[in-house]
Amino acid sequence: MFGRLLLLETVGVVVNEHNKLRINLKENSYDIIIEHGLLSNLGALISEKFGKPKIFIVTDNNISVHWLEQTIESFSAQGVSPKVLEVPVGESTKSFINLEKIIDQLLESKVDRNSLLIALGGGVIGDLTGFAGAVTLRGIKVIQVPTTLLSQVDSSVGGKTGINVRQGKNLVGSFYQPSLVAVDTQVLKTLPQRQLFAGYAEVVKYGLIKDCSFFEWLELNGKKVLEGDKLAQQFAIFTSCRIKAEIVEADEKEQNLRAILNFGHTFGHALEVEAGYDGNLLHGEAVSIGMVMAIELSKNLGHLSGQDAGRAIEYIRSIGLPTNINSIEGSTSWNPDGLIQHMQHDKKVSNGQLRFVLIKGIGEAYLTADVEKKQVYNVIEKSLSGDL
Amino acid sequence: MFGRLLLLETVGVVVNEHNKLRINLKENSYDIIIEHGLLSNLGALISEKFGKPKIFIVTDNNISVHWLEQTIESFSAQGVSPKVLEVPVGESTKSFINLEKIIDQLLESKVDRNSLLIALGGGVIGDLTGFAGAVTLRGIKVIQVPTTLLSQVDSSVGGKTGINVRQGKNLVGSFYQPSLVAVDTQVLKTLPQRQLFAGYAEVVKYGLIKDCSFFEWLELNGKKVLEGDKLAQQFAIFTSCRIKAEIVEADEKEQNLRAILNFGHTFGHALEVEAGYDGNLLHGEAVSIGMVMAIELSKNLGHLSGQDAGRAIEYIRSIGLPTNINSIEGSTSWNPDGLIQHMQHDKKVSNGQLRFVLIKGIGEAYLTADVEKKQVYNVIEKSLSGDL
Repeated sequence: MFGRLLLLETVGVVVNEHNKLRINLKENSYDIIIEHGLLSNLGALISEKFGKPKIFIVTDNNISVHWLEQTIESFSAQGVSPKVLEVPVGESTKSFINLEKIIDQLLESKVDRNSLLIALGGGVIGDLTGFAGAVTLRGIKVIQVPTTLLSQVDSSVGGKTGINVRQGKNLVGSFYQPSLVAVDTQVLKTLPQRQLFAGYAEVVKYGLIKDCSFFEWLELNGKKVLEGDKLAQQFAIFTSCRIKAEIVEADEKEQNLRAILNFGHTFGHALEVEAGYDGNLLHGEAVSIGMVMAIELSKNLGHLSGQDAGRAIEYIRSIGLPTNINSIEGSTSWNPDGLIQHMQHDKKVSNGQLRFVLIKGIGEAYLTADVEKKQVYNVIEKSLSGDL
Repeated sequence: MFGRLLLLETVGVVVNEHNKLRINLKENSYDIIIEHGLLSNLGALISEKFGKPKIFIVTDNNISVHWLEQTIESFSAQGVSPKVLEVPVGESTKSFINLEKIIDQLLESKVDRNSLLIALGGGVIGDLTGFAGAVTLRGIKVIQVPTTLLSQVDSSVGGKTGINVRQGKNLVGSFYQPSLVAVDTQVLKTLPQRQLFAGYAEVVKYGLIKDCSFFEWLELNGKKVLEGDKLAQQFAIFTSCRIKAEIVEADEKEQNLRAILNFGHTFGHALEVEAGYDGNLLHGEAVSIGMVMAIELSKNLGHLSGQDAGRAIEYIRSIGLPTNINSIEGSTSWNPDGLIQHMQHDKKVSNGQLRFVLIKGIGEAYLTADVEKKQVYNVIEKSLSGDL
């Protein structure tokens, strides 16, 4: 197995084959295509697959300044003029108001059941646009063109769409599969470093929960991914999507298995709520710290060897990701009770019973409700003290 | 076959067996239960099927004055206290504002993924509640308890949910299957006569599009249905739901076959748009007039015998349903060009090409795009003149 990994590390052509994934679901199947420079070819790709329907692009200013022009040109070359709907940058864009606005503009522009809605942006754009597509005319085709590493490996695969309401994030939405996911690794060039690293935390997650050999590959090649190596990025994104896809295929509507995708998220989500989504803590950073806490908890429960725990935490630290609460900047005054309370209010919790995704080895996640509060408390304390 | 029909007419016990339908869809299957007095037993039925989750009931004043108390009592008997969300009466309730309000109240009351949302009312309540259920926490269980004849035979089966926006009716929504449809024929006692007749137009539709023997049964027993005979109502609703279910099972997402459910609706919808939904023309009445126009068009095209056309139209007239535009009260000034324009803007139309559901015999609907505008014009003129 190690031989194959070394091969992948050194022989580009092997990686090069890994640029297309077919996601097979009960009712809807679709492709994920990963390619450096794909945006300049998007118009042709879409014409080939879907003909020439009306095209709508939802995007925000972060991405439009860098990438909108060449995207539109790729359609112009096909004789197609997409209509662009630009929404504000930021998490607060995922609101009922913007949902209504997008739908209103689609309907005013005579959207029809053959129209294509393209989400060109990060997770916010993908979630909002996906949801708008899910409910306009009871569902039109949506194409995800994720432009952050996080959305490329996570939010554009799996069909979760949604908006935030005052009671919490993503509490309104639907499961709605895209008709195509087109990933251009080139756009990572204009992604801020901090965002790139935060997205990389989710890449590491896939190794930890389901694929030890991918984790090993990351130990060897992770730096290349972060430094912009095209083939390394393509392979890391491909493999992350493949792992996520396997999990989603087995459990589309989040009954059970899919929960392992939330590794690091039970802790991480509580941190995000407490930090207040003010930009001091990115989602991927919260996941990174949450994964370390979940690894520590797995070890403390005697389910994971000290060696594996040490190796996993050491990798997260060495690559440059945050590992403890103490490292979060900003003015939040953290306390364990508050964090545990947030965990209990998570929408995935039923009857207040906390469930954790833990690992029993690198690449072997499992779900358990059998964790004493004291154990959770101890891990939080340790993270707060900066000892993780 | 006629023997069986007579049997159904005279021997109640045969009809009595027809009170449960299983709808089998690719991913979700559910039951439709039709029973006189079912509401007083709803709590027990739901506890048996779903245990004792949090229950939310969405209803309006039309129905709550008559039937809410006994519904709630049926839950109290099970030790369950449903939370009631009352929305205003009328089509304008199907709005983004009310969707948001319902979701907000659900979330404030700590709705969780096991909660049950009950739609107790007619089509407006069913559509709005179904949509709210579809998107709250990305989907919670919805139980349809339709209280008008129209919603009992039509809108509660098939999973279409939605709201209206300024560009038109039902332009935002989703396909979302209920977990149970519970039909109590008793509630028809408090339904205004005009609403009962309008709903009956959809019952007649099922015979005309797919089941000649059911049409024959209606010719013999339709009056009983309208006069409140329990068993006749049960059988008519059961058969209507069965026919709709067969069509929906074969074509859940409205690709093709499902279009025949729109018999009478292409004309009818244009009439409704022109009449402006001001109460002068109920949906079922528009469908009744639209069906007569579709029958006439079928005959004029030489696809339907004059004998069948005459029999169908005569039945619609004799039972007391409207047959032509001339009979619509109110101040609308009708004209054929305006109506044809509305038809072309229907959301089911692609590329402005009009498609019609016609019949080539009683019980044999088909879909065609091969109709000259002149023919449509002639039929509208005849309906306007009162000659249909």
